[in-house]
Amino acid sequence: MISVAVIGYGNLAFHLVNNFQTHQQITLTGVFARDINKLSHLQNHTFITDDINLLPVSDIYIISVSDTSIKNVSSNLKTDSGLVVHTSGATAMEVLRGSYRKGVLYPLQSFSKDKKIDFVNVPFCLEAENKEDLLLLESLIKTIGSKSYRISSAQRLKLHISAVFVNNFVNHLYKIGHDICQDNNIPFEILLPIIQETSKKVQRLTPKEAQTGPAVRSDDKTISKHLDLLNDNQKEIYNLLTQSIKNDNKL
Amino acid sequence: MISVAVIGYGNLAFHLVNNFQTHQQITLTGVFARDINKLSHLQNHTFITDDINLLPVSDIYIISVSDTSIKNVSSNLKTDSGLVVHTSGATAMEVLRGSYRKGVLYPLQSFSKDKKIDFVNVPFCLEAENKEDLLLLESLIKTIGSKSYRISSAQRLKLHISAVFVNNFVNHLYKIGHDICQDNNIPFEILLPIIQETSKKVQRLTPKEAQTGPAVRSDDKTISKHLDLLNDNQKEIYNLLTQSIKNDNKL
Repeated sequence: MISVAVIGYGNLAFHLVNNFQTHQQITLTGVFARDINKLSHLQNHTFITDDINLLPVSDIYIISVSDTSIKNVSSNLKTDSGLVVHTSGATAMEVLRGSYRKGVLYPLQSFSKDKKIDFVNVPFCLEAENKEDLLLLESLIKTIGSKSYRISSAQRLKLHISAVFVNNFVNHLYKIGHDICQDNNIPFEILLPIIQETSKKVQRLTPKEAQTGPAVRSDDKTISKHLDLLNDNQKEIYNLLTQSIKNDNKL
Repeated sequence: MISVAVIGYGNLAFHLVNNFQTHQQITLTGVFARDINKLSHLQNHTFITDDINLLPVSDIYIISVSDTSIKNVSSNLKTDSGLVVHTSGATAMEVLRGSYRKGVLYPLQSFSKDKKIDFVNVPFCLEAENKEDLLLLESLIKTIGSKSYRISSAQRLKLHISAVFVNNFVNHLYKIGHDICQDNNIPFEILLPIIQETSKKVQRLTPKEAQTGPAVRSDDKTISKHLDLLNDNQKEIYNLLTQSIKNDNKL
Protein backbone atom coordinates (compact mmCIF):
# COMPACT_ATOMS: atom_id res chain seq x y z
CA MET A 1 0.00 0.00 0.00
CA ILE A 2 1.37 3.42 -0.97
CA SER A 3 -0.20 6.61 0.41
CA VAL A 4 -0.09 9.68 -1.82
CA ALA A 5 -1.07 13.34 -1.41
CA VAL A 6 -1.52 15.51 -4.49
CA ILE A 7 -0.65 19.20 -4.44
CA GLY A 8 -2.10 21.31 -7.24
CA TYR A 9 -5.01 20.96 -9.60
CA GLY A 10 -3.85 21.35 -13.19
CA ASN A 11 -4.40 18.82 -16.00
CA LEU A 12 -1.90 16.31 -14.71
CA ALA A 13 -3.01 16.51 -11.06
CA PHE A 14 -6.61 16.05 -12.26
CA HIS A 15 -5.78 12.84 -14.12
CA LEU A 16 -3.54 11.48 -11.34
CA VAL A 17 -6.22 12.05 -8.68
CA ASN A 18 -8.82 10.29 -10.84
CA ASN A 19 -6.49 7.42 -11.51
CA PHE A 20 -5.19 6.92 -7.94
CA GLN A 21 -8.77 6.50 -6.72
CA THR A 22 -9.18 3.42 -8.90
CA HIS A 23 -6.32 1.38 -7.39
CA GLN A 24 -6.67 -0.57 -4.15
CA GLN A 25 -2.91 -0.53 -3.61
CA ILE A 26 -2.90 3.30 -3.54
CA THR A 27 -4.42 5.47 -0.83
CA LEU A 28 -5.11 9.02 -1.92
CA THR A 29 -4.70 10.82 1.44
CA GLY A 30 -5.77 14.27 0.26
CA VAL A 31 -5.57 17.01 -2.35
CA PHE A 32 -4.40 20.59 -1.83
CA ALA A 33 -5.28 23.62 -3.96
CA ARG A 34 -4.84 27.29 -3.09
CA ASP A 35 -8.40 27.84 -4.30
CA ILE A 36 -10.33 25.08 -2.54
CA ASN A 37 -13.43 25.72 -4.70
CA LYS A 38 -11.64 23.98 -7.57
CA LEU A 39 -11.70 20.79 -5.50
CA SER A 40 -15.31 20.93 -4.32
CA HIS A 41 -16.44 17.98 -6.47
CA LEU A 42 -13.84 15.83 -4.71
CA GLN A 43 -15.08 16.46 -1.18
CA ASN A 44 -17.12 13.27 -0.97
CA HIS A 45 -14.21 11.20 -2.23
CA THR A 46 -11.09 12.43 -0.46
CA PHE A 47 -9.79 14.98 2.01
CA ILE A 48 -9.43 18.44 0.41
CA THR A 49 -7.66 21.46 1.84
CA ASP A 50 -6.25 24.90 1.09
CA ASP A 51 -3.71 24.58 3.92
CA ILE A 52 -0.82 22.50 2.61
CA ASN A 53 0.27 21.45 6.10
CA LEU A 54 -3.10 19.91 6.91
CA LEU A 55 -2.46 17.20 4.33
CA PRO A 56 -2.33 13.82 6.13
CA VAL A 57 1.02 12.10 6.55
CA SER A 58 1.80 10.32 3.25
CA ASP A 59 4.52 8.19 1.67
CA ILE A 60 4.68 10.49 -1.36
CA TYR A 61 3.67 14.13 -1.87
CA ILE A 62 3.27 14.98 -5.56
CA ILE A 63 3.63 18.69 -6.31
CA SER A 64 1.97 19.20 -9.68
CA VAL A 65 1.90 22.97 -10.16
CA SER A 66 3.30 25.37 -12.77
CA ASP A 67 7.12 25.38 -13.08
CA THR A 68 7.38 28.87 -11.60
CA SER A 69 5.40 27.91 -8.47
CA ILE A 70 7.36 24.77 -7.52
CA LYS A 71 9.98 26.58 -5.45
CA ASN A 72 7.41 28.55 -3.45
CA VAL A 73 4.90 25.75 -2.91
CA SER A 74 7.58 23.25 -1.96
CA SER A 75 9.06 25.61 0.64
CA ASN A 76 5.70 25.76 2.45
CA LEU A 77 5.41 22.00 2.77
CA LYS A 78 6.70 20.38 5.97
CA THR A 79 7.13 16.63 6.28
CA ASP A 80 9.52 14.49 8.28
CA SER A 81 8.74 11.15 6.74
CA GLY A 82 7.46 11.64 3.21
CA LEU A 83 9.11 11.78 -0.20
CA VAL A 84 8.34 15.03 -2.06
CA VAL A 85 8.40 15.02 -5.87
CA HIS A 86 7.56 17.51 -8.60
CA THR A 87 6.30 16.60 -12.06
CA SER A 88 8.10 19.12 -14.27
CA GLY A 89 10.26 18.32 -17.29
CA ALA A 90 12.22 21.55 -17.31
CA THR A 91 12.92 21.90 -13.57
CA ALA A 92 15.84 20.38 -11.66
CA MET A 93 15.08 18.21 -8.61
CA GLU A 94 17.02 20.64 -6.41
CA VAL A 95 14.47 23.39 -6.98
CA LEU A 96 12.37 21.64 -4.31
CA ARG A 97 12.97 23.68 -1.12
CA GLY A 98 12.66 21.68 2.07
CA SER A 99 14.56 19.37 4.38
CA TYR A 100 12.56 16.35 3.19
CA ARG A 101 13.69 13.63 0.74
CA LYS A 102 13.31 14.77 -2.87
CA GLY A 103 12.46 13.26 -6.22
CA VAL A 104 10.87 13.82 -9.61
CA LEU A 105 8.04 12.04 -11.40
CA TYR A 106 7.77 13.51 -14.91
CA PRO A 107 5.20 12.04 -17.28
CA LEU A 108 6.22 12.63 -20.88
CA GLN A 109 2.85 13.07 -22.52
CA SER A 110 0.49 15.83 -23.61
CA PHE A 111 -2.60 16.12 -21.36
CA SER A 112 -5.98 17.77 -21.89
CA LYS A 113 -8.58 17.87 -19.09
CA ASP A 114 -11.37 16.94 -21.49
CA LYS A 115 -9.73 13.75 -22.71
CA LYS A 116 -9.35 10.59 -20.66
CA ILE A 117 -5.75 9.48 -20.30
CA ASP A 118 -4.75 5.87 -20.76
CA PHE A 119 -1.78 5.72 -18.42
CA VAL A 120 -0.40 2.73 -20.33
CA ASN A 121 0.69 5.33 -22.93
CA VAL A 122 2.41 7.63 -20.44
CA PRO A 123 6.11 7.01 -19.83
CA PHE A 124 7.24 8.37 -16.45
CA CYS A 125 10.76 9.73 -15.98
CA LEU A 126 11.82 9.14 -12.39
CA GLU A 127 14.56 10.62 -10.23
CA ALA A 128 15.27 10.48 -6.48
CA GLU A 129 18.13 11.21 -4.10
CA ASN A 130 18.37 7.62 -2.94
CA LYS A 131 17.67 4.16 -4.28
CA GLU A 132 14.83 3.28 -1.87
CA ASP A 133 12.85 6.31 -3.04
CA LEU A 134 13.48 5.44 -6.67
CA LEU A 135 12.09 1.95 -5.96
CA LEU A 136 9.08 3.51 -4.19
CA LEU A 137 8.32 5.70 -7.23
CA GLU A 138 8.81 2.74 -9.56
CA SER A 139 6.34 0.75 -7.51
CA LEU A 140 3.75 3.56 -7.69
CA ILE A 141 4.15 3.87 -11.47
CA LYS A 142 3.95 0.12 -11.93
CA THR A 143 0.68 0.12 -9.98
CA ILE A 144 -0.94 2.62 -12.33
CA GLY A 145 0.18 0.53 -15.30
CA SER A 146 2.75 2.92 -16.78
CA LYS A 147 6.33 2.35 -17.86
CA SER A 148 9.05 4.14 -15.90
CA TYR A 149 12.58 5.24 -16.77
CA ARG A 150 15.42 6.41 -14.51
CA ILE A 151 16.30 9.84 -15.86
CA SER A 152 18.60 12.44 -14.27
CA SER A 153 17.70 16.15 -14.07
CA ALA A 154 20.14 16.92 -16.89
CA GLN A 155 18.69 14.17 -19.10
CA ARG A 156 15.15 15.25 -18.25
CA LEU A 157 15.75 18.77 -19.52
CA LYS A 158 17.10 17.30 -22.79
CA LEU A 159 14.00 15.13 -23.06
CA HIS A 160 11.84 18.16 -22.47
CA ILE A 161 13.57 19.93 -25.36
CA SER A 162 13.09 16.85 -27.56
CA ALA A 163 9.39 16.92 -26.70
CA VAL A 164 9.21 20.55 -27.83
CA PHE A 165 10.51 19.41 -31.24
CA VAL A 166 8.34 16.29 -31.65
CA ASN A 167 5.19 17.76 -30.09
CA ASN A 168 5.00 21.60 -30.10
CA PHE A 169 6.98 22.19 -33.30
CA VAL A 170 5.42 19.24 -35.11
CA ASN A 171 1.99 20.64 -34.27
CA HIS A 172 3.08 23.98 -35.71
CA LEU A 173 4.00 22.25 -38.98
CA TYR A 174 0.49 20.76 -38.97
CA LYS A 175 -0.74 24.35 -38.53
CA ILE A 176 1.18 25.47 -41.64
CA GLY A 177 -0.34 22.56 -43.61
CA HIS A 178 -3.74 23.63 -42.31
CA ASP A 179 -3.13 27.26 -43.37
CA ILE A 180 -2.11 26.23 -46.90
CA CYS A 181 -5.23 24.05 -47.23
CA GLN A 182 -7.50 26.79 -45.93
CA ASP A 183 -6.03 29.39 -48.29
CA ASN A 184 -6.70 27.08 -51.25
CA ASN A 185 -10.14 25.70 -50.35
CA ILE A 186 -8.77 22.23 -49.70
CA PRO A 187 -10.26 20.16 -46.85
CA PHE A 188 -7.56 19.64 -44.18
CA GLU A 189 -8.93 16.12 -43.55
CA ILE A 190 -7.08 14.97 -46.72
CA LEU A 191 -3.85 15.36 -44.72
CA LEU A 192 -4.99 13.46 -41.62
CA PRO A 193 -4.13 9.95 -42.90
CA ILE A 194 -0.55 10.91 -43.83
CA ILE A 195 -0.14 12.69 -40.48
CA GLN A 196 -1.12 9.45 -38.73
CA GLU A 197 1.08 7.30 -40.96
CA THR A 198 4.13 9.56 -40.43
CA SER A 199 3.83 9.19 -36.64
CA LYS A 200 3.35 5.42 -36.95
CA LYS A 201 6.35 4.91 -39.22
CA VAL A 202 8.86 5.94 -36.52
CA GLN A 203 7.37 3.39 -34.15
CA ARG A 204 9.17 0.75 -36.28
CA LEU A 205 11.87 2.65 -38.24
CA THR A 206 14.36 5.27 -37.05
CA PRO A 207 13.44 8.79 -38.25
CA LYS A 208 16.52 8.72 -40.46
CA GLU A 209 15.35 5.52 -42.16
CA ALA A 210 11.82 6.91 -42.50
CA GLN A 211 12.86 10.18 -44.20
CA THR A 212 11.39 10.73 -47.66
CA GLY A 213 10.64 13.77 -49.82
CA PRO A 214 12.37 16.22 -52.15
CA ALA A 215 15.02 17.34 -49.62
CA VAL A 216 16.45 13.88 -48.89
CA ARG A 217 16.62 13.00 -52.59
CA SER A 218 17.97 16.50 -53.44
CA ASP A 219 15.14 17.08 -55.92
CA ASP A 220 15.89 20.77 -56.44
CA LYS A 221 13.37 21.12 -59.25
CA THR A 222 10.45 20.24 -56.96
CA ILE A 223 11.95 22.27 -54.10
CA SER A 224 12.06 25.43 -56.21
CA LYS A 225 8.53 24.79 -57.52
CA HIS A 226 7.38 24.64 -53.88
CA LEU A 227 9.32 27.72 -52.75
CA ASP A 228 7.66 29.83 -55.45
CA LEU A 229 4.27 29.22 -53.83
CA LEU A 230 5.02 29.95 -50.17
CA ASN A 231 4.76 33.14 -48.14
CA ASP A 232 7.91 34.58 -46.54
CA ASN A 233 7.55 32.85 -43.18
CA GLN A 234 6.71 29.47 -44.75
CA LYS A 235 9.59 29.89 -47.19
CA GLU A 236 12.08 30.54 -44.38
CA ILE A 237 10.95 27.42 -42.51
CA TYR A 238 10.93 25.35 -45.73
CA ASN A 239 14.47 26.45 -46.62
CA LEU A 240 15.90 25.85 -43.16
CA LEU A 241 14.39 22.37 -42.75
CA THR A 242 15.31 21.38 -46.31
CA GLN A 243 18.91 22.44 -45.69
CA SER A 244 18.97 20.57 -42.39
CA ILE A 245 17.71 17.36 -44.03
CA LYS A 246 20.29 17.73 -46.83
CA ASN A 247 23.11 18.26 -44.30
CA ASP A 248 22.06 15.15 -42.36
CA ASN A 249 22.38 13.09 -45.49
CA LYS A 250 25.77 14.46 -46.45
CA LEU A 251 27.30 13.13 -43.23
CA MET B 1 -16.54 -3.49 -64.59
CA ILE B 2 -13.56 -1.17 -65.07
CA SER B 3 -10.47 -2.32 -66.96
CA VAL B 4 -7.15 -0.86 -65.87
CA ALA B 5 -3.56 -1.06 -67.13
CA VAL B 6 -0.68 -0.06 -64.83
CA ILE B 7 2.46 1.56 -66.21
CA GLY B 8 5.47 1.55 -63.91
CA TYR B 9 6.60 -0.51 -60.98
CA GLY B 10 7.40 1.75 -58.04
CA ASN B 11 5.89 1.53 -54.54
CA LEU B 12 2.51 2.89 -55.53
CA ALA B 13 2.20 0.79 -58.71
CA PHE B 14 3.13 -2.27 -56.65
CA HIS B 15 0.33 -1.67 -54.14
CA LEU B 16 -2.23 -0.76 -56.82
CA VAL B 17 -1.51 -3.91 -58.83
CA ASN B 18 -1.87 -6.06 -55.70
CA ASN B 19 -5.08 -4.33 -54.75
CA PHE B 20 -6.74 -4.34 -58.18
CA GLN B 21 -6.34 -8.12 -58.36
CA THR B 22 -8.58 -8.54 -55.31
CA HIS B 23 -11.66 -6.79 -56.75
CA GLN B 24 -14.11 -8.56 -59.06
CA GLN B 25 -15.31 -5.21 -60.44
CA ILE B 26 -11.80 -4.36 -61.66
CA THR B 27 -9.97 -6.10 -64.50
CA LEU B 28 -6.23 -5.63 -64.42
CA THR B 29 -5.45 -5.85 -68.15
CA GLY B 30 -1.67 -5.69 -67.87
CA VAL B 31 1.41 -4.13 -66.34
CA PHE B 32 4.25 -2.40 -68.18
CA ALA B 33 7.81 -1.89 -66.94
CA ARG B 34 10.87 -0.91 -68.98
CA ASP B 35 12.73 -3.73 -67.21
CA ILE B 36 10.35 -6.68 -67.54
CA ASN B 37 12.36 -8.73 -65.03
CA LYS B 38 10.88 -6.58 -62.26
CA LEU B 39 7.47 -7.98 -63.17
CA SER B 40 8.40 -11.66 -63.47
CA HIS B 41 6.53 -12.72 -60.33
CA LEU B 42 3.33 -11.31 -61.90
CA GLN B 43 3.50 -13.41 -65.07
CA ASN B 44 1.10 -16.08 -63.81
CA HIS B 45 -1.41 -13.46 -62.69
CA THR B 46 -1.60 -10.85 -65.43
CA PHE B 47 -0.18 -9.81 -68.78
CA ILE B 48 3.26 -8.22 -68.44
CA THR B 49 5.19 -6.35 -71.10
CA ASP B 50 8.12 -4.04 -71.76
CA ASP B 51 6.42 -2.61 -74.88
CA ILE B 52 3.92 -0.02 -73.68
CA ASN B 53 1.82 -0.29 -76.86
CA LEU B 54 1.24 -3.99 -76.35
CA LEU B 55 -0.90 -3.23 -73.28
CA PRO B 56 -4.47 -4.44 -73.96
CA VAL B 57 -7.17 -1.83 -74.59
CA SER B 58 -8.29 -0.51 -71.19
CA ASP B 59 -10.71 2.02 -69.70
CA ILE B 60 -7.92 3.60 -67.64
CA TYR B 61 -4.14 3.64 -68.03
CA ILE B 62 -2.38 4.57 -64.79
CA ILE B 63 1.11 5.98 -65.31
CA SER B 64 2.86 5.58 -61.98
CA VAL B 65 6.48 6.51 -62.66
CA SER B 66 8.89 9.15 -61.30
CA ASP B 67 7.83 12.77 -61.89
CA THR B 68 10.63 13.34 -64.36
CA SER B 69 9.63 10.35 -66.51
CA ILE B 70 5.91 11.17 -66.89
CA LYS B 71 6.33 13.35 -69.98
CA ASN B 72 8.45 10.82 -71.81
CA VAL B 73 6.48 7.70 -70.88
CA SER B 74 3.15 9.33 -71.63
CA SER B 75 4.29 10.44 -75.07
CA ASN B 76 5.03 6.81 -76.02
CA LEU B 77 1.55 5.60 -75.11
CA LYS B 78 -1.06 5.45 -77.88
CA THR B 79 -4.74 4.90 -77.13
CA ASP B 80 -7.90 6.03 -78.87
CA SER B 81 -10.41 5.03 -76.25
CA GLY B 82 -8.74 5.05 -72.84
CA LEU B 83 -8.33 7.65 -70.12
CA VAL B 84 -4.67 8.23 -69.21
CA VAL B 85 -3.81 9.45 -65.70
CA HIS B 86 -0.63 10.05 -63.74
CA THR B 87 -0.29 9.74 -59.97
CA SER B 88 2.01 12.64 -59.11
CA GLY B 89 1.30 15.37 -56.56
CA ALA B 90 3.72 17.92 -57.98
CA THR B 91 2.96 17.51 -61.70
CA ALA B 92 0.23 19.28 -63.69
CA MET B 93 -2.24 17.16 -65.68
CA GLU B 94 -1.07 18.85 -68.90
CA VAL B 95 2.38 17.26 -68.60
CA LEU B 96 0.77 14.12 -70.06
CA ARG B 97 1.74 14.13 -73.77
CA GLY B 98 -0.75 12.44 -76.03
CA SER B 99 -3.97 12.96 -77.93
CA TYR B 100 -5.92 10.80 -75.43
CA ARG B 101 -8.19 12.01 -72.60
CA LYS B 102 -6.21 13.01 -69.52
CA GLY B 103 -6.59 12.90 -65.78
CA VAL B 104 -4.81 12.60 -62.44
CA LEU B 105 -5.19 10.13 -59.61
CA TYR B 106 -2.94 11.26 -56.73
CA PRO B 107 -2.99 9.27 -53.49
CA LEU B 108 -1.91 11.45 -50.60
CA GLN B 109 -0.13 8.93 -48.44
CA SER B 110 3.38 7.68 -47.74
CA PHE B 111 4.05 4.21 -49.18
CA SER B 112 6.71 1.61 -48.45
CA LYS B 113 6.96 -1.62 -50.44
CA ASP B 114 7.50 -3.68 -47.30
CA LYS B 115 4.32 -2.51 -45.59
CA LYS B 116 0.82 -3.50 -46.61
CA ILE B 117 -1.39 -0.51 -47.41
CA ASP B 118 -4.91 -0.29 -46.12
CA PHE B 119 -6.48 1.73 -48.92
CA VAL B 120 -9.22 2.92 -46.57
CA ASN B 121 -6.56 5.29 -45.20
CA VAL B 122 -5.52 6.65 -48.60
CA PRO B 123 -7.35 9.75 -49.83
CA PHE B 124 -7.20 10.09 -53.63
CA CYS B 125 -7.11 13.52 -55.28
CA LEU B 126 -8.80 13.27 -58.67
CA GLU B 127 -8.74 15.49 -61.73
CA ALA B 128 -9.94 14.97 -65.32
CA GLU B 129 -10.66 17.04 -68.42
CA ASN B 130 -14.33 16.10 -68.46
CA LYS B 131 -17.01 15.09 -66.00
CA GLU B 132 -17.54 11.53 -67.30
CA ASP B 133 -13.87 10.73 -66.69
CA LEU B 134 -14.03 12.22 -63.21
CA LEU B 135 -16.99 9.93 -62.49
CA LEU B 136 -15.06 6.96 -63.90
CA LEU B 137 -12.11 7.68 -61.60
CA GLU B 138 -14.45 8.15 -58.64
CA SER B 139 -16.03 4.82 -59.36
CA LEU B 140 -12.61 3.11 -59.46
CA ILE B 141 -11.58 4.70 -56.16
CA LYS B 142 -14.87 3.80 -54.51
CA THR B 143 -14.34 0.18 -55.57
CA ILE B 144 -11.00 -0.04 -53.79
CA GLY B 145 -12.59 1.45 -50.66
CA SER B 146 -10.81 4.79 -50.62
CA LYS B 147 -12.16 8.31 -50.27
CA SER B 148 -11.77 10.63 -53.25
CA TYR B 149 -11.61 14.42 -53.60
CA ARG B 150 -11.89 16.63 -56.69
CA ILE B 151 -8.68 18.64 -56.68
CA SER B 152 -7.34 20.86 -59.48
CA SER B 153 -3.68 20.81 -60.60
CA ALA B 154 -3.06 24.10 -58.76
CA GLN B 155 -4.64 22.79 -55.56
CA ARG B 156 -2.78 19.50 -55.86
CA LEU B 157 0.57 21.25 -55.89
CA LYS B 158 -0.43 23.14 -52.74
CA LEU B 159 -1.46 19.87 -51.13
CA HIS B 160 1.86 18.37 -52.10
CA ILE B 161 3.63 21.24 -50.34
CA SER B 162 1.44 20.78 -47.26
CA ALA B 163 2.41 17.12 -47.24
CA VAL B 164 6.08 18.10 -47.25
CA PHE B 165 5.43 20.07 -44.06
CA VAL B 166 3.29 17.49 -42.23
CA ASN B 167 5.23 14.44 -43.41
CA ASN B 168 8.84 15.12 -44.51
CA PHE B 169 9.53 18.05 -42.19
CA VAL B 170 7.68 16.50 -39.25
CA ASN B 171 9.82 13.40 -39.69
CA HIS B 172 12.92 15.58 -39.61
CA LEU B 173 11.79 17.04 -36.26
CA TYR B 174 11.46 13.45 -35.02
CA LYS B 175 15.05 12.99 -36.22
CA ILE B 176 16.21 15.96 -34.13
CA GLY B 177 14.43 14.51 -31.08
CA HIS B 178 16.15 11.19 -31.84
CA ASP B 179 19.57 12.90 -32.09
CA ILE B 180 19.11 14.69 -28.75
CA CYS B 181 18.11 11.41 -27.07
CA GLN B 182 21.03 9.52 -28.58
CA ASP B 183 23.54 12.20 -27.51
CA ASN B 184 22.28 11.95 -23.92
CA ASN B 185 21.84 8.19 -23.55
CA ILE B 186 18.07 8.46 -23.41
CA PRO B 187 15.94 5.74 -25.09
CA PHE B 188 14.03 7.32 -28.01
CA GLU B 189 11.05 5.07 -27.20
CA ILE B 190 10.15 7.48 -24.35
CA LEU B 191 9.08 9.96 -27.06
CA LEU B 192 6.95 7.52 -29.08
CA PRO B 193 3.73 7.92 -27.06
CA ILE B 194 3.76 11.75 -27.29
CA ILE B 195 4.52 11.50 -31.03
CA GLN B 196 1.41 9.33 -31.44
CA GLU B 197 -0.74 11.57 -29.23
CA THR B 198 0.33 14.73 -31.12
CA SER B 199 -0.79 13.22 -34.42
CA LYS B 200 -4.06 12.03 -32.88
CA LYS B 201 -4.92 15.38 -31.33
CA VAL B 202 -5.33 17.11 -34.71
CA GLN B 203 -7.80 14.44 -35.79
CA ARG B 204 -10.32 16.16 -33.45
CA LEU B 205 -8.90 19.69 -32.81
CA THR B 206 -7.49 22.23 -35.28
CA PRO B 207 -3.68 22.53 -35.02
CA LYS B 208 -4.15 26.03 -33.67
CA GLU B 209 -6.38 24.74 -30.86
CA ALA B 210 -3.97 21.90 -30.16
CA GLN B 211 -0.86 24.11 -29.83
CA THR B 212 0.89 23.92 -26.44
CA GLY B 213 4.43 24.58 -25.17
CA PRO B 214 6.72 27.42 -24.17
CA ALA B 215 6.36 29.38 -27.45
CA VAL B 216 2.57 29.70 -27.41
CA ARG B 217 2.55 30.78 -23.76
CA SER B 218 5.58 33.08 -24.34
CA ASP B 219 7.54 31.33 -21.58
CA ASP B 220 10.85 33.01 -22.40
CA LYS B 221 12.58 31.61 -19.32
CA THR B 222 12.10 28.02 -20.51
CA ILE B 223 12.90 28.99 -24.11
CA SER B 224 16.28 30.45 -23.14
CA LYS B 225 17.02 27.44 -20.92
CA HIS B 226 16.41 25.23 -23.98
CA LEU B 227 18.42 27.37 -26.41
CA ASP B 228 21.49 27.12 -24.17
CA LEU B 229 21.57 23.36 -24.69
CA LEU B 230 21.18 23.11 -28.48
CA ASN B 231 23.75 22.98 -31.27
CA ASP B 232 23.77 25.73 -33.90
CA ASN B 233 21.49 23.99 -36.40
CA GLN B 234 18.97 22.91 -33.74
CA LYS B 235 19.06 26.44 -32.27
CA GLU B 236 18.26 28.04 -35.61
CA ILE B 237 15.27 25.72 -36.15
CA TYR B 238 14.12 26.21 -32.54
CA ASN B 239 14.28 29.99 -32.86
CA LEU B 240 12.49 30.16 -36.21
CA LEU B 241 9.63 27.84 -35.21
CA THR B 242 9.26 29.55 -31.81
CA GLN B 243 9.02 32.93 -33.52
CA SER B 244 6.51 31.56 -36.04
CA ILE B 245 4.29 30.17 -33.24
CA LYS B 246 4.51 33.50 -31.37
CA ASN B 247 3.55 35.45 -34.51
CA ASP B 248 0.55 33.21 -35.12
CA ASN B 249 -0.74 33.98 -31.70
CA LYS B 250 -0.27 37.72 -31.99
CA LEU B 251 -2.66 37.85 -34.94
